[in-house]
Amino acid sequence: MTQQQPQEPIFDVHQLAHVEILSPKPDETVRFFKDLLGMQESARSGQSVYLRAYEDWYHHTLKVTEAKKPGLGHLAWRTSSQAALERRVRVLEGTGLGKGWSEGDLGHGAAYQFSSPDGHNVELLWDVDYWQAPPELRSPLLNRPQKRPLQGVPVRRLDHVNLMAANVTTDKDFWMEQLGFRLREHIVAPDGGEIAAWMSVSPLAHEIAIMGDQSGMQGRLHHICYWYGSPQHLSDLADVMREQDITIEAGPGKHGITQGMFMYVIEPGGNRVELFGDTGYMILDPDWKPIRWTEETLARGIIWHGSDLPAEFFLYATPLIEKVEELEAAGVLD
Amino acid sequence: MTQQQPQEPIFDVHQLAHVEILSPKPDETVRFFKDLLGMQESARSGQSVYLRAYEDWYHHTLKVTEAKKPGLGHLAWRTSSQAALERRVRVLEGTGLGKGWSEGDLGHGAAYQFSSPDGHNVELLWDVDYWQAPPELRSPLLNRPQKRPLQGVPVRRLDHVNLMAANVTTDKDFWMEQLGFRLREHIVAPDGGEIAAWMSVSPLAHEIAIMGDQSGMQGRLHHICYWYGSPQHLSDLADVMREQDITIEAGPGKHGITQGMFMYVIEPGGNRVELFGDTGYMILDPDWKPIRWTEETLARGIIWHGSDLPAEFFLYATPLIEKVEELEAAGVLD
Amino acid sequence: MTQQQPQEPIFDVHQLAHVEILSPKPDETVRFFKDLLGMQESARSGQSVYLRAYEDWYHHTLKVTEAKKPGLGHLAWRTSSQAALERRVRVLEGTGLGKGWSEGDLGHGAAYQFSSPDGHNVELLWDVDYWQAPPELRSPLLNRPQKRPLQGVPVRRLDHVNLMAANVTTDKDFWMEQLGFRLREHIVAPDGGEIAAWMSVSPLAHEIAIMGDQSGMQGRLHHICYWYGSPQHLSDLADVMREQDITIEAGPGKHGITQGMFMYVIEPGGNRVELFGDTGYMILDPDWKPIRWTEETLARGIIWHGSDLPAEFFLYATPLIEKVEELEAAGVLD
Amino acid sequence: MTQQQPQEPIFDVHQLAHVEILSPKPDETVRFFKDLLGMQESARSGQSVYLRAYEDWYHHTLKVTEAKKPGLGHLAWRTSSQAALERRVRVLEGTGLGKGWSEGDLGHGAAYQFSSPDGHNVELLWDVDYWQAPPELRSPLLNRPQKRPLQGVPVRRLDHVNLMAANVTTDKDFWMEQLGFRLREHIVAPDGGEIAAWMSVSPLAHEIAIMGDQSGMQGRLHHICYWYGSPQHLSDLADVMREQDITIEAGPGKHGITQGMFMYVIEPGGNRVELFGDTGYMILDPDWKPIRWTEETLARGIIWHGSDLPAEFFLYATPLIEKVEELEAAGVLD
Repeated sequence: MTQQQPQEPIFDVHQLAHVEILSPKPDETVRFFKDLLGMQESARSGQSVYLRAYEDWYHHTLKVTEAKKPGLGHLAWRTSSQAALERRVRVLEGTGLGKGWSEGDLGHGAAYQFSSPDGHNVELLWDVDYWQAPPELRSPLLNRPQKRPLQGVPVRRLDHVNLMAANVTTDKDFWMEQLGFRLREHIVAPDGGEIAAWMSVSPLAHEIAIMGDQSGMQGRLHHICYWYGSPQHLSDLADVMREQDITIEAGPGKHGITQGMFMYVIEPGGNRVELFGDTGYMILDPDWKPIRWTEETLARGIIWHGSDLPAEFFLYATPLIEKVEELEAAGVLD
Repeated sequence: MTQQQPQEPIFDVHQLAHVEILSPKPDETVRFFKDLLGMQESARSGQSVYLRAYEDWYHHTLKVTEAKKPGLGHLAWRTSSQAALERRVRVLEGTGLGKGWSEGDLGHGAAYQFSSPDGHNVELLWDVDYWQAPPELRSPLLNRPQKRPLQGVPVRRLDHVNLMAANVTTDKDFWMEQLGFRLREHIVAPDGGEIAAWMSVSPLAHEIAIMGDQSGMQGRLHHICYWYGSPQHLSDLADVMREQDITIEAGPGKHGITQGMFMYVIEPGGNRVELFGDTGYMILDPDWKPIRWTEETLARGIIWHGSDLPAEFFLYATPLIEKVEELEAAGVLD
Repeated sequence: MTQQQPQEPIFDVHQLAHVEILSPKPDETVRFFKDLLGMQESARSGQSVYLRAYEDWYHHTLKVTEAKKPGLGHLAWRTSSQAALERRVRVLEGTGLGKGWSEGDLGHGAAYQFSSPDGHNVELLWDVDYWQAPPELRSPLLNRPQKRPLQGVPVRRLDHVNLMAANVTTDKDFWMEQLGFRLREHIVAPDGGEIAAWMSVSPLAHEIAIMGDQSGMQGRLHHICYWYGSPQHLSDLADVMREQDITIEAGPGKHGITQGMFMYVIEPGGNRVELFGDTGYMILDPDWKPIRWTEETLARGIIWHGSDLPAEFFLYATPLIEKVEELEAAGVLD
Repeated sequence: MTQQQPQEPIFDVHQLAHVEILSPKPDETVRFFKDLLGMQESARSGQSVYLRAYEDWYHHTLKVTEAKKPGLGHLAWRTSSQAALERRVRVLEGTGLGKGWSEGDLGHGAAYQFSSPDGHNVELLWDVDYWQAPPELRSPLLNRPQKRPLQGVPVRRLDHVNLMAANVTTDKDFWMEQLGFRLREHIVAPDGGEIAAWMSVSPLAHEIAIMGDQSGMQGRLHHICYWYGSPQHLSDLADVMREQDITIEAGPGKHGITQGMFMYVIEPGGNRVELFGDTGYMILDPDWKPIRWTEETLARGIIWHGSDLPAEFFLYATPLIEKVEELEAAGVLD
């Protein structure tokens, strides 16, 4: 029977709206997303290029900004309404992590900026611009914002983001308590400490994941993920990645956690990008009991079938720690 | 830019919990779901058999009840909390469509019963029983409530329901205004009348659809739908349906509306059952503008590619109208 | 038990080497194959463009030649050896259908030319040129002659050809008796006459099909077919065809005959092109008993599941008959 | 241009007809093939059970025989005619490896038995029994010998066999020179020695593979392989294997060599079984130049994408060498 529910769920944060990544090789990074993943360029401004997948409705879901090192620029979440935005801002102002309002950017209006406990730059926003297809790109499939691109193996939409944090539980609690994320799955160490956590505000099994960072660094990015919806496209893209000299770190394979069909590649700027083959499973239960993976069960959680993950998977994040940069310079991680 | 939003969205109804269908041939209907679709029997009681798909978490998602004619027994939706249930009951009591509380059934506690404007039996509930796998059926994939069955081409979970209604707009407005459903797509006639509407409370492009019923009958069922997540399984199941003498009405094919990969079959009791091949597209935008299909664009909305729909698709619903029953008796619809 | 075998099989004809199609809109036809199907241009000469799919090993598998009307230019088959070529030439010279040797063309040496009974231009050859990838297109997948293209939904290789003939049996007997093709499946009318026949010299269920032509014309082409090997690519290409204004005549769907996952489109020059989603079934039995489809069983042979075939499927071939050209001019076939 | 061809190809051996494997746990082995792979039992006799996949046309393609140790019983190839069988027998009699005629077995008539150079038991035959479906199993899909089973994730047909041999070149030369197999791909060591070879008599990239055996043992089996034709079924079966406690040694993944989508499991009797997800690529060229993989290119040949192969893949074969049996007893290989 259903357990007692102490309080009602919060539905204020609704959707991962866009991600900004930093790249020391912005031209190559942009070419990777456009030529190989079929993404569309919406705009260029300053040191940034704005991109979207062909079923992304907003102005952009990816902003690539030139920087000395790869890493996360910022994350943006759209709220479920203007009032919901205002409610969350009031809560965030009480956490000491709020930074205040920005006037917006290409593609959206005012956004409230704050920091995660681990130091990732995040913003909440309501006011967005919808991308308008020029006539030659309009599809007779009216629920698709543009025609399927003829370039590369085109991704369909932004799916999720995976962040590193020194203290997984601290960051997880922040996302859950201040922003209303629901914990879907987590890995728990023998001492009870959390090693990783997957959370969402929708039936997707995760829109954000937090993984433990032992590097002593802050605010690092593990990966961003775009969605295909069909495992065949991972196989198609694997051909492309192998033949176009892009490093496939792992996959195609299937995680037990989230049941996600995955492939991980390193884009030319150094950031890890996941491609998601299908939808995994959907969590429609409003009273979901988080799945707890422990030492005894974890192997099947990490990999349900197919490709193993290399040891670097759990260490490599952007910006890189010195040691890994040295390894990379030596060609060990290529 | 984002338009003015008059009021905040309602998040009280959360999930299609289960469906009851009526069958004049209950043994054959149950065999269809168990032997061909790999569903599991949870319980039997009176004239009813309770079934679930292998990734359904609750006691059951389908109740098959013996009756003289096929059709819908009732629909059940789970709310997002006990408080949400109480809020919706207060609203429903004001509509004149409320019927009051039932004590529950196998698999769930108290449920508030009401009628849709067109006369479908519906209930809202919060208190549910989770199905517990016996040890030999527990999967090492902890986010799966049981092992994948070795029988048939097993479906993964209940997806949606499609109802007929004499006045589409009246029923659509009821679901939206009283229960918080969001309109995702609709077909609009040249005179502005709505011919069909697809709605959801989650990013699924629909959990309920309403299609116009010109038969003069009330409370009819167009179809229930179970989900695979992979188009290959529609092809596998088409083999099975052809070889086991089950009528395939249409498909596999792809709708433009909802982008759903579909196959429609008629179960032995006479109800239409859809099998859903992939997830279609997901609506993550909290401020979605409904997709409007009209005479000019509709052909691609009905069928994006593959199998056409026969004329009967728009007429056949359960219980059958007299004329169709005569046609069926004459073998015309076989 | 195995039946008595009157004589040994002939293994002299080995492979469909290339096809020449005629197009009144050669630029648009070539763009169709290059931009949408990802084919590569090998050469241009006179009024012809030479193309190949990315897993085709020879200089070309398709020659597009400008002409007033669409249709078949010629077909070429490679023999299993130089001696096999000479043996077949001796046989063909005795049929009265031989035309003599050509000096060859771009991509191959001397070829022996002849006519099918219905008047299709055919040649046999042994001496071929292999296409050599420039360094930037060489794949680390050594059994692939070049990298997977980044353009369109790229086809992998030429699969088969389907011809119309006034007398199916006459043409079928010619291919079997003079050239060693094995009959795999056929449709037989109630009066015993053959309506269509599928033949091959390899385990592919067909490399050539003959369908009855009631137009009074000769030497017509029903379609050529390129191969994907994965049904997902038919779905991908259907998106592209719909959005790029190419007529999809039928599919995706699955034939019972050959078990082929099919999609048929009309290229801008007017010729029908099939895309083949998977391999269907393979015929490895050296003593195969042809599958006989008759009135009672034929519906499932034509379509096993999914998309129906329109009536035009059985009439439309290139060059067009007058009546169809008038229909087309009137937009009826668009 | 085409090179000089010294002699004509031999087309006498046509098809892998069946394989006999030995099992110390025959009941569990048979249950594995029937319950999980959906194979059908044709007959039982003595210590043997005869099985076939649902698109295998002959009486059986697999014979499971009780024995103290796992391994290969024998392999059988069907010739292209009775005359072809007699030609090959004359050749084999001259090799010193011939053993003479057997009277046949359930499912086939007289067979000529011989030994491969490494000691595998092989037979050639022409006279076979076709399996006859009982009426309730006959499919309206006339090119399928029976309905698709409703049990497990059913395999479609026998695909190939992979044998170990002390001297790869010796065995490869035997299959090529005495029996007409064509070399499709091979791995060549820096010293020029062959490490493995893939051969076929049809466009399948291999029907037999030979891998180097450093154990000092003879006549060992690396694996047998059944075919699905669709990668989704490997994913489905991986679920089943994980949940039914069958060891997945590797996969799903894609080999570069043969482009095969693979999964390797160990059946309860200890023999390795491969499941083949799609057709890979087809070799239609009658004058194929073997693909040569060397130290520099081999990594991509072994694995093109997805699952890695464990070190045991290259050591484990049946019957097991002492050392591996000890490792297994210690649980190291579980």
